[in-house]
Amino acid sequence: MKRSLILFAFLFLSGIIFAQKRKEIIFPDIQGYKILKCDFHIHTVFSDGNVWPTIRVEEAWREGLDAIAITDHIEYLPHKKDIIADHNRSFEIALPAGENRDILVIHGSEITRSMPPGHSNALFLKNSNLLDTAKYIDAFKAAKAQNAFIFWNHPAWSRQQPDTTLWWKEHTELYEAGLMQGIEVVNEHEYSPEAHKWAIEKKLTMLGNSDIHNPIQMDYDFSMGEHRPMTLVLAKEKTIEGIREALLNRRTIVYHNHLLIGDNAYLKELFEKSVKIEKVSRNNKSIRVTIYNSSSVPFEIRKVKGNDPNLEFFRELKIEAGGYTSFTVYEKEPTKNTSFNLQLEVQNLLVAPGKGMPYKLAIQVK
Amino acid sequence: MKRSLILFAFLFLSGIIFAQKRKEIIFPDIQGYKILKCDFHIHTVFSDGNVWPTIRVEEAWREGLDAIAITDHIEYLPHKKDIIADHNRSFEIALPAGENRDILVIHGSEITRSMPPGHSNALFLKNSNLLDTAKYIDAFKAAKAQNAFIFWNHPAWSRQQPDTTLWWKEHTELYEAGLMQGIEVVNEHEYSPEAHKWAIEKKLTMLGNSDIHNPIQMDYDFSMGEHRPMTLVLAKEKTIEGIREALLNRRTIVYHNHLLIGDNAYLKELFEKSVKIEKVSRNNKSIRVTIYNSSSVPFEIRKVKGNDPNLEFFRELKIEAGGYTSFTVYEKEPTKNTSFNLQLEVQNLLVAPGKGMPYKLAIQVK
Amino acid sequence: MKRSLILFAFLFLSGIIFAQKRKEIIFPDIQGYKILKCDFHIHTVFSDGNVWPTIRVEEAWREGLDAIAITDHIEYLPHKKDIIADHNRSFEIALPAGENRDILVIHGSEITRSMPPGHSNALFLKNSNLLDTAKYIDAFKAAKAQNAFIFWNHPAWSRQQPDTTLWWKEHTELYEAGLMQGIEVVNEHEYSPEAHKWAIEKKLTMLGNSDIHNPIQMDYDFSMGEHRPMTLVLAKEKTIEGIREALLNRRTIVYHNHLLIGDNAYLKELFEKSVKIEKVSRNNKSIRVTIYNSSSVPFEIRKVKGNDPNLEFFRELKIEAGGYTSFTVYEKEPTKNTSFNLQLEVQNLLVAPGKGMPYKLAIQVK
Amino acid sequence: MKRSLILFAFLFLSGIIFAQKRKEIIFPDIQGYKILKCDFHIHTVFSDGNVWPTIRVEEAWREGLDAIAITDHIEYLPHKKDIIADHNRSFEIALPAGENRDILVIHGSEITRSMPPGHSNALFLKNSNLLDTAKYIDAFKAAKAQNAFIFWNHPAWSRQQPDTTLWWKEHTELYEAGLMQGIEVVNEHEYSPEAHKWAIEKKLTMLGNSDIHNPIQMDYDFSMGEHRPMTLVLAKEKTIEGIREALLNRRTIVYHNHLLIGDNAYLKELFEKSVKIEKVSRNNKSIRVTIYNSSSVPFEIRKVKGNDPNLEFFRELKIEAGGYTSFTVYEKEPTKNTSFNLQLEVQNLLVAPGKGMPYKLAIQVK
Repeated sequence: MKRSLILFAFLFLSGIIFAQKRKEIIFPDIQGYKILKCDFHIHTVFSDGNVWPTIRVEEAWREGLDAIAITDHIEYLPHKKDIIADHNRSFEIALPAGENRDILVIHGSEITRSMPPGHSNALFLKNSNLLDTAKYIDAFKAAKAQNAFIFWNHPAWSRQQPDTTLWWKEHTELYEAGLMQGIEVVNEHEYSPEAHKWAIEKKLTMLGNSDIHNPIQMDYDFSMGEHRPMTLVLAKEKTIEGIREALLNRRTIVYHNHLLIGDNAYLKELFEKSVKIEKVSRNNKSIRVTIYNSSSVPFEIRKVKGNDPNLEFFRELKIEAGGYTSFTVYEKEPTKNTSFNLQLEVQNLLVAPGKGMPYKLAIQVK
Repeated sequence: MKRSLILFAFLFLSGIIFAQKRKEIIFPDIQGYKILKCDFHIHTVFSDGNVWPTIRVEEAWREGLDAIAITDHIEYLPHKKDIIADHNRSFEIALPAGENRDILVIHGSEITRSMPPGHSNALFLKNSNLLDTAKYIDAFKAAKAQNAFIFWNHPAWSRQQPDTTLWWKEHTELYEAGLMQGIEVVNEHEYSPEAHKWAIEKKLTMLGNSDIHNPIQMDYDFSMGEHRPMTLVLAKEKTIEGIREALLNRRTIVYHNHLLIGDNAYLKELFEKSVKIEKVSRNNKSIRVTIYNSSSVPFEIRKVKGNDPNLEFFRELKIEAGGYTSFTVYEKEPTKNTSFNLQLEVQNLLVAPGKGMPYKLAIQVK
Repeated sequence: MKRSLILFAFLFLSGIIFAQKRKEIIFPDIQGYKILKCDFHIHTVFSDGNVWPTIRVEEAWREGLDAIAITDHIEYLPHKKDIIADHNRSFEIALPAGENRDILVIHGSEITRSMPPGHSNALFLKNSNLLDTAKYIDAFKAAKAQNAFIFWNHPAWSRQQPDTTLWWKEHTELYEAGLMQGIEVVNEHEYSPEAHKWAIEKKLTMLGNSDIHNPIQMDYDFSMGEHRPMTLVLAKEKTIEGIREALLNRRTIVYHNHLLIGDNAYLKELFEKSVKIEKVSRNNKSIRVTIYNSSSVPFEIRKVKGNDPNLEFFRELKIEAGGYTSFTVYEKEPTKNTSFNLQLEVQNLLVAPGKGMPYKLAIQVK
Repeated sequence: MKRSLILFAFLFLSGIIFAQKRKEIIFPDIQGYKILKCDFHIHTVFSDGNVWPTIRVEEAWREGLDAIAITDHIEYLPHKKDIIADHNRSFEIALPAGENRDILVIHGSEITRSMPPGHSNALFLKNSNLLDTAKYIDAFKAAKAQNAFIFWNHPAWSRQQPDTTLWWKEHTELYEAGLMQGIEVVNEHEYSPEAHKWAIEKKLTMLGNSDIHNPIQMDYDFSMGEHRPMTLVLAKEKTIEGIREALLNRRTIVYHNHLLIGDNAYLKELFEKSVKIEKVSRNNKSIRVTIYNSSSVPFEIRKVKGNDPNLEFFRELKIEAGGYTSFTVYEKEPTKNTSFNLQLEVQNLLVAPGKGMPYKLAIQVK
């Protein structure tokens, strides 16, 4: 038998891939809400983006998103010599593609003004064309008249705020008029501590969005574990209305690199439902602990003050995503204790600028 | 607020990984049996391998295996100047590590002789030392006396069979005496069509094993989708006895690169339980079909003779693993038919050398 | 000192990447010609593609290409409701982006007709609008009148040639009229042995092109080592005219997966200039040989008939790209010979359908 | 022609890889010295490591290292029931493998004591057995008598320094007696700011080592861009003596994740020789700058105080490794200036704990 004749046609196929693979992002439900993965800031060729609107849906599907907003600029249309279309068109094209992939597509627009007040996104529009006004305030009002949710984009963008991230009086005016309901704490690759602080102080909804213009893989290397920034929305249901209700009620967490940014209560429940102590075994003076983290995000914990001085354990530890992590607690003086508390901070769960989530980990020896 | 002070200790952790992540390999149950992923040919520093036995367990766990056999050479011990230990020792060291990881560790040895009969593995031994005999036949008998399962290793190894893969009279003798119950159809990176043919003709159990000597990632690049060859065992239960019973009854499939090699009945059920038609929609003359493949292996299908000449569809198609694949069937003359049969061959399900599994795919338009 | 305060701003940067990284593809010069890496079949939003023309340049630059042709369809314009532009426009937009990246951009169009004669690309056009004719033959003549180079696209496309790849009388007419100068031996993921055969018999220039519509990374996973198919052009210089001259004189090699397809003379020189025997050492009866392959393509060699029966060596061997590969030749009977010839076939250098390049590897023991 | 018969034997080869690929790490020469990539802390099965010594050489070669020290524990030998060998043996086995791969192998040992003084490595030994003493001070003296270079390992190891990284009086004694010449600023995954500070204050040689026990790829995921920590040695020549001379004269840089840690003078020259301004073009009020970074390390720069208030540019920027990075400087008020200075900090070039390297980037418009 000639081996040469055996596997024949195989090679022809090696590249014939119509791969349609979705990478699911795993988070537990929180307070009975589902966590929807959303990106509310996206461009297409219909403003200054570089892809056709349907591509945005396909990208979102592959990356495990549940919803996207198409938010082309109203005022900045560099392709208008070639592309004739009104401000609703990119949404209209993306919508049926979204239905096919079960991706919610939100009708949005980016109100694109110089600073102040800079750029803002309006979501849940009915007619984007009405936002094409001379004065910026009229665009905000036109959005509000359509019952839009409006948020301030990239407050720390160095082109508009070269050295310092400032809150201008115009922002106070918008905010007080109900024309600024949220703020991008993360835009593209950048986290803004000022935006984070303002969101907490002024009770603005926190958002993290990609502001993507290129094909997504031109800016993010998935093979290196990178992902676009997302707004995690704690929604009653996976619908446009479900997302709107959650945004209005500030039920969001921003997911950026390995960071989760949000309210302590949400982050605490997310952590506790993700992390399970699988196994605790005592061996004389040492206690071996194995943890399973079912979520898609690793947790980075460190020892803080207030621990039992008889216990020796790690200074810092990374709890692997989707896997097991083990560590050992040593007793300086042996005891027969069967329960221990470790005082920790989860550094990548950010409850305020510079402040990781405090956590007391309780361990029971069986 | 100074952004510089915010995320502080973060970087320190970026590499502090005690990652313990298992990559699960997904296959459906077949005929009521579980599919156990096994590697029955593994070396350690106790013969001519290069890692400590416990490493073999950790590697197996990370790669999603259920069972391994430690099969150090009886006759070839290049490290014996430094390592003093009997032939049972590498198994003894691996065993508790396996218990800790829930990996079954099988006590084996490699009877390592010149051709004929070449090398053979004996599994399920009690005392490997008894295989250290002058004549090869006595080693086989000593294994058999311990109720071992014995198979011929790498029959196509070019060092022992330089140009042609031959079956020697010594193999007939072993086979007839019940001292050869299986054969490696795949060893390391090599598939042998001759071994495949003999396995079918002589009703030998088919095996595919790594014969690994180095740290596994020195020889396989997991980031490129490579995996070690495995023997998939259709077992009643995940126990040593469950594996032995399945091997004696020839319930195995060899998993090598993208190939699954085995009996038509097993492969057909594996395919049918892995692949589900998710959606069929007719649009005038074209029918769009979306398939979901829940297994870890892509399927490479091609059109064969005997199809309805009114139907136009792909010549070849790859059904993505763990994902969706879509294709379109066109009617030359429009009909109102609601059911179609596509005559296919699944090229990477190998039922004989050079022969992919024939399959009729039935499609219903809802 | 508090470790927490030390590395501060670091994390903020972890994702701020404006990465502009080109992956060079390494081949030696052949017969004094440079090897230019080209893709002569590319779509944009201006026909049925999904990206803005400038993206095609950026993709090409990152992937190590030297030249691309923008070849939007003349007859198929599904975006024309939104995009108003003539047939030259996508080229005009891509051109300055190419100058910025030192990527040659060729003005092309795809003449898009039903079979026969199917689709053809015309390169080096001056005015694509003149190809928008009622009869296909007039489009070919309009291209020829502009001194275009014309080739038949994807002759094996199952939508136009459902079961068998046929050469129609219309192709003979085009060929004889000088209106078909080349043929795609590879289109997208598919190699066509028929096209390969015809290219050899009829002295057509062989081409391998991507026919890309999506963002390139939606269809190719670079992290798994995939690359788009390319036409390697053996050019006197990196200019549009240099490429045209080479295409007219059939100086191309098709690069697809790990395959290089072309004339024996080109492939032989490419192999010999890429592969260098680094080290040969004799140790009694065995000769250890280490090879360095400086090219970006691995070579897959196998032993063929006609070898010295006293020599034992591999049946098959992969010579790693950009790295070292070692193997051993054993003498059955020891000699003092200092030179050996191994009769081989380089299987992935395809000199005809089904035929790898024969090669005699001469080894000198120093 | 049947396509099925064409590429035949191809698949058999797809996995037959004896890959021997070295990943070169690129740094410029500094002050006329070559930069040797070294790891001076490595274990094998001969103490508590898990691989055979030859594997350490193969790993080092593949990762682009120039030199390794085998430093098995003197006092901790958990495999001694099975492995009988003196303390020199693992070095003796690694040495010829190193010669074959052109990797320098340094004879070392780890003096393994409780804190104080904890663990120390001695390099350039002649006979490790003489370090097997009752009192720790005698081991240090025995090393010194062999003209060894001695450094303190992992001063921040939480098992020996649970909460705080302390310098004990025993360290002062060793230091003053010339028995501590260097210190690990990085061990395994951990950077110690205290060790960094002490190295600067006390003029100790800075080291960064892996302390690897497992197969290297079990602890580092190369596909994610991870690398083991290394000591970059600025040596006159690639010899054992060249390394010793450089260590004695404190010519090292520690390479850990994306960090380079060392003296300002070395880091400044490394930065300037790695980064080249490729292109500067003025377009009215904006200046576009393109930089090429020829090294293997990205540089993370940020704007600091003292910049011309008329210039607007990035707050932070990552200069890609082995690639091009572009940014734009805007003038608020247009000038005709042809030269600009940007006041920056290179954050990942660490000249002291918490202190990136200051740098003035001068830009000339041509």
